[in-house]
Formats: sequence, C-alpha cells, structure tokens
Amino acid sequence: MVDHEQRREDLGHAVWRVIRRDGVDAASVRTVAAEAGWSPGSLRHYFASQSELLAFAVQLVVDRIEDRIAALEPPDDPREAVEQVLFELLPLDDDRRAENEVWLAFAGRALIDPGLRTRHEEIDDALREACTSAIGRLAGAGRIRSGLDEALEGERLHALVDGLALHTALRPEHLSPPRIVAVVVRHLDSLDPPYGTADLKDPVASG
Amino acid sequence: MVDHEQRREDLGHAVWRVIRRDGVDAASVRTVAAEAGWSPGSLRHYFASQSELLAFAVQLVVDRIEDRIAALEPPDDPREAVEQVLFELLPLDDDRRAENEVWLAFAGRALIDPGLRTRHEEIDDALREACTSAIGRLAGAGRIRSGLDEALEGERLHALVDGLALHTALRPEHLSPPRIVAVVVRHLDSLDPPYGTADLKDPVASG
Repeated sequence: MVDHEQRREDLGHAVWRVIRRDGVDAASVRTVAAEAGWSPGSLRHYFASQSELLAFAVQLVVDRIEDRIAALEPPDDPREAVEQVLFELLPLDDDRRAENEVWLAFAGRALIDPGLRTRHEEIDDALREACTSAIGRLAGAGRIRSGLDEALEGERLHALVDGLALHTALRPEHLSPPRIVAVVVRHLDSLDPPYGTADLKDPVASG
Repeated sequence: MVDHEQRREDLGHAVWRVIRRDGVDAASVRTVAAEAGWSPGSLRHYFASQSELLAFAVQLVVDRIEDRIAALEPPDDPREAVEQVLFELLPLDDDRRAENEVWLAFAGRALIDPGLRTRHEEIDDALREACTSAIGRLAGAGRIRSGLDEALEGERLHALVDGLALHTALRPEHLSPPRIVAVVVRHLDSLDPPYGTADLKDPVASG
C-alpha cells in the first residue's frame, strides 16, 4: 500500500516535470516513462493514453490543494479565513505555480478532448463553489454590502482568480506574488467598503 | 492586391475552422491546406511551421477586433463608451466566441513555444493597456472613486476579462452573453458606487 502510494506520487512528479519543462503536448506515456525511469510498457499498464496521464496529474494537484486547505488553522476573522483559502488556490510560490500550470494545461486539453471534459467540469465546479462560498461566508458575517447578488459575485471572483492564474502563467513579470495578493485584497475590500482601504473613506468625493 | 488580401482572408478562415473544430493541435499546415483546398506545398510557401500559421490566425483576430473598435460610434457617456469597447473584447456572439478560442489556443501554445512568445506579449500588452485606459478614462471623467490605484484596477479588470473569456470557452453553460454583461456591469458599478446599482444606495447598512 505504501509502495503503491509512493509509486503513484513518483509518477505524478514525473508527469509534472515533463509538463513544466516541455508543455502538455510532450507529456506522452513514452516521455513520462523515460522521465520516471520506467519502461513505456510498464507505464502503459497504468495509463492507456495521454489523457489518462493528464487526468492523473491534475488529480495530484487537487489532492495537494485539498490537503493544504484541510491543514489550515482558520483565523477567527472571516475575511482573513477567506483570504487564506483563496491564496492556496493562487500561484504564489513555485509549488503553486507548478499546480497552476498543470491545471491550465489540463483545462486547455479539455477544450479539445471530450474524455477530459467531465473531470474538468467537476474541478471547475469545485473552484466556482469555493469562490461562491467565500462570498457567502463574507455575506454571513456582514462583511459584504447587503443586497449584493452572491452568485454573481461568486462568478466574478472565480473569473478574477482564474484570470490571475492565466496571467501569472503567461506573464509572470506582470504578476509577482505580492501583486496577486494586492489585486485579491483590493477585490475583497471593494465588496466591503465600510471596512475597506483609505480610498473608500469618502464615498461621494468622486461624485 | 485584392486577390492577395482575399487569399489571406480565405486562409485565415480555414485555419479558424480547423482550430474551432479539432483544436489547436490539429491546425497543421497539412490539415489547413486540406481545409482550404490547397496543396500542402503551396501552403508551405506561406507558412513554414504551425506556429507561423497560428500567429497568422491570431493576427486576423486582432485585425477584426481593431476594425470593429475603430468603427464604433462612441456615445457621449464615458461609462457607456468603456462598456462598448470591453464588449468587443468579450465572447458575446459566435464570431467573438471563435476569436476568443483562437486567442486562448494561441496563448496556450505560447506557453510552450518560445517563437510565439513575443507576439503573445504584444497582444497581451495591448489588452492590458485597453483595460488600463478604460480605468483611466473613467477616472478622468470622475466615474471611479478618487484615490484608487489605476494600474492595479487595470490589472484587476484585465484578469476579470480574461477569466470570463477562459470560462466562456470552457463552460459556456455557466456564462451566457447576458451573464458576462452582468458581471462586467457589476464590476464597473463597484468602482463607481455613487452612480451604482440599488444595492449600493445604503453604503453602511452592512456595517
């Protein structure tokens, strides 16, 4: 059992290294076998196709993120708790950047491979749900303006998070980790003007 | 000259149809030649590689968007003018959805093909600049709160726009055109509370 888990994790890291180095198109059963030091035949015992291999890599990413979120010690402040979860989803260090790139490669592949679509939708739904519950949690604590459409705000936060993920992968020089944090903090501030940043102290100054 | 332009446009549409139908990986010189009714040899006269072909397809998208924006008759209201431009960038009908998919395919390919990176950066810079000038224009007209960091707001709007584009390509059932419009309108409203929606009339009710 331990050996099986270890083999699974070793394989996952091999898939990951190939994707990061050469892109998703290069992550064939043959390339990953070479990277992992296996024979192609023995790897094909685990993965019949490149799509199965990619689904496996993205599952590793999901597991890693879920483990980190489960291990968080949530602060009492709901706004801080929401930030903590969102920051686990964003590419703020090398590990999370690798996760981000695997996720985007998987998403890009799902566009053209129907076999990956269901799994992609499940993960995408989980991310949308994480963003919508973040909004719901802030609303429940009176930390967003009353009357906002929570589903719409969840969609908007989800688009922002994935847009930041996409831009970080493609233009890392524009989105350093502190810059990503600043954008997310500003977004949450904008939902919550009474608690927000200094520029919001005078809500009618621009009128 | 007319013939050359027409051939260029016909080729562009052939590239486009292949990408939309089979994904970017299928857009080889050979497949596009078949789609366009050319011999592979005569197409290779125009494009030495798949990357050159993709760069050509994305240039068509850029030209189309620029032509549409140049043809707009901007309304006097700066907020409406900003919305008009942003809506040209978003996948709100079949043509713009096709443009969006070509752009995302090109961006995904640029992640792994250094030969596309410079062109990708130029287009990405143009989109960031469009978002930042939208914010600057609203600020100049007193239509966003004073004191906001315009560069940060430009980055945030740019991430939102590309996140919506990504989600529309991957999960069209979650983002109908009216839903995309509602998210963008809500985003611009949130920058401009005194003019904003009904939920913002009582800024301290949630405190």
